[in-house]
Amino acid sequence: MSASKSKVLLIGSGGVGTIASYALEYAGKAEVTSVLRSDYAKVVEQGFSIDSCDYGKIPSFRPTNVVNSVEESLKFGPFEYIVVVTKCVPEVSNMIDVIAPAVSPESAIVLIQNGIGIETEAVTKFPNNVVLSGVSMIGSANLNSHIVHESTDSLKVGVFESNKLDNELTQAVCKKFVTIYTNDKNECIFDESVKFSRWRKLVYNACLNGVCAITGVDSGRLELFGGVDGIIRKAMKEVLAIAKSDGVELPEDIMEFMIRSDDPVYYAPSMLVDVRKGNLLEIEVINGNPIRIAEKNGVSAPYLTLCYELLKVIQRKTMEQKGLLTVPKERPVPK
Amino acid sequence: MSASKSKVLLIGSGGVGTIASYALEYAGKAEVTSVLRSDYAKVVEQGFSIDSCDYGKIPSFRPTNVVNSVEESLKFGPFEYIVVVTKCVPEVSNMIDVIAPAVSPESAIVLIQNGIGIETEAVTKFPNNVVLSGVSMIGSANLNSHIVHESTDSLKVGVFESNKLDNELTQAVCKKFVTIYTNDKNECIFDESVKFSRWRKLVYNACLNGVCAITGVDSGRLELFGGVDGIIRKAMKEVLAIAKSDGVELPEDIMEFMIRSDDPVYYAPSMLVDVRKGNLLEIEVINGNPIRIAEKNGVSAPYLTLCYELLKVIQRKTMEQKGLLTVPKERPVPK
Repeated sequence: MSASKSKVLLIGSGGVGTIASYALEYAGKAEVTSVLRSDYAKVVEQGFSIDSCDYGKIPSFRPTNVVNSVEESLKFGPFEYIVVVTKCVPEVSNMIDVIAPAVSPESAIVLIQNGIGIETEAVTKFPNNVVLSGVSMIGSANLNSHIVHESTDSLKVGVFESNKLDNELTQAVCKKFVTIYTNDKNECIFDESVKFSRWRKLVYNACLNGVCAITGVDSGRLELFGGVDGIIRKAMKEVLAIAKSDGVELPEDIMEFMIRSDDPVYYAPSMLVDVRKGNLLEIEVINGNPIRIAEKNGVSAPYLTLCYELLKVIQRKTMEQKGLLTVPKERPVPK
Repeated sequence: MSASKSKVLLIGSGGVGTIASYALEYAGKAEVTSVLRSDYAKVVEQGFSIDSCDYGKIPSFRPTNVVNSVEESLKFGPFEYIVVVTKCVPEVSNMIDVIAPAVSPESAIVLIQNGIGIETEAVTKFPNNVVLSGVSMIGSANLNSHIVHESTDSLKVGVFESNKLDNELTQAVCKKFVTIYTNDKNECIFDESVKFSRWRKLVYNACLNGVCAITGVDSGRLELFGGVDGIIRKAMKEVLAIAKSDGVELPEDIMEFMIRSDDPVYYAPSMLVDVRKGNLLEIEVINGNPIRIAEKNGVSAPYLTLCYELLKVIQRKTMEQKGLLTVPKERPVPK
């Protein structure tokens, strides 16, 4: 049966990516080659340990092939699907350049990442490959190769509008991916309006996620301290206006739905967690790209714009702390 | 000669206030009663030690009278001037209530504090007392009753517009204060347009000070990381527009002057220093009051408004950390 399995290359084994590998291999329809970096040695030796709300306790999970570079993965290809589940931080690394050596004429690229406009580079660089859009709703974290998976894996997959390929082909490729990903424990659907789902998720991410990161408080405190009334509702209205200018009409009540979505928990959104850990944030795709769409379409979005500008400064502060940029020893001044 | 000295009550012996006490006693024209709290015991015993760019090294300075409460100060009154040099954080303490027991019919109240609209309560509560506006330009810090005074004491004093008293009286009271404060080492002038000076200083404080506090970077990095172009110039334009609506026409080039005013230093503005130390910020008088004037006068100020809203959240986070507010154990949710 092994010959009929789809070959999948998976990049990014954080909490979401490792559960995706597991899901793909669970029903025996895919053979996953996983590119690992920091976890490589440990996983080769011991595998991931998983504690999952969907799959239970798995003492040791090792994807079929574990490699430590894309170059090394090539011997297990060619790949039918190349699944990217990394954080999207284009200021620091270009994931499309990273996967390029593995992209064959038949490969479909699946971007399971947050944000808007994340596909531009893939579609431009690989105009003859299908590029799929995955919007994941899951709670899962990788704590030093131990996966704590707390809320069920629910994945919507569709075709990016910007694919200029035959519609029937792209849909077939997408639906096949849904078939191999789906098993009896998770939820994975083909989403004809995946663009809607992507903008919908952004209502939370561009607003609550970003403002909690800037202010350093969880979403419960943000509300108690006046930030939901003073900031979030206004910023969310801007997201809805930008989405509309991009052809996506989100219902007004999505705003209250997202504001209440962490109830009754003092919940620290992922960007706040990352700020606290000194990690980089996905600000270009979550905050920057919507602003650029707003500018292009003439939509006023002062709150989101200022949040983005503040997050850019915070991101550069983190980059300096991580040694990814240095400031001149003396402050440069105009002559 | 002691009988001819002006009796001055001084509240707030931080870096600015202690140099003010020293200045007032230096030329022998005033007798200062200083209300201390945290420094009280140490200063009674040893005095302040001062390292001053204006006065040199002073091993031990003790104002004429040192007390630990306004009530205790009364035995040294009545006071001709009551000088308030505290940080202005009305969310936490009402300084006018604090000084009230010491205000006699002849007392003038001198507010050497940052921000706009800081006099409202004094003028309302003491309509028959002169209320003076002091705008201080000084670099001075109190490090555990050791004063490090690094840039010269330059004080502008004028009469708040909202004083409804006879103009000749208020000006005479103000000029007398200038006379007793001035000595051969410092600079103190009677400022007929002190309102202009107050708004002028706010161009720096509401923008660079606030945004450095929010992002956690000094003003040099803020510029290198894009925040001056992306945020500060827009926010400063809003300050100028609000000032104009309040009758104060600031020159356009004040913006670049303030942006360059920390050159060539990677300078941490006071609000950033306070955030790093976990101190409360003067957000209501520096950020909140200008926004309220903008709203009243129909001036659009989205950047300053969002900065204020973010700072309010950060302030409440600090208040929680300091035990000045508590959040419910469980996050309240709407029924």
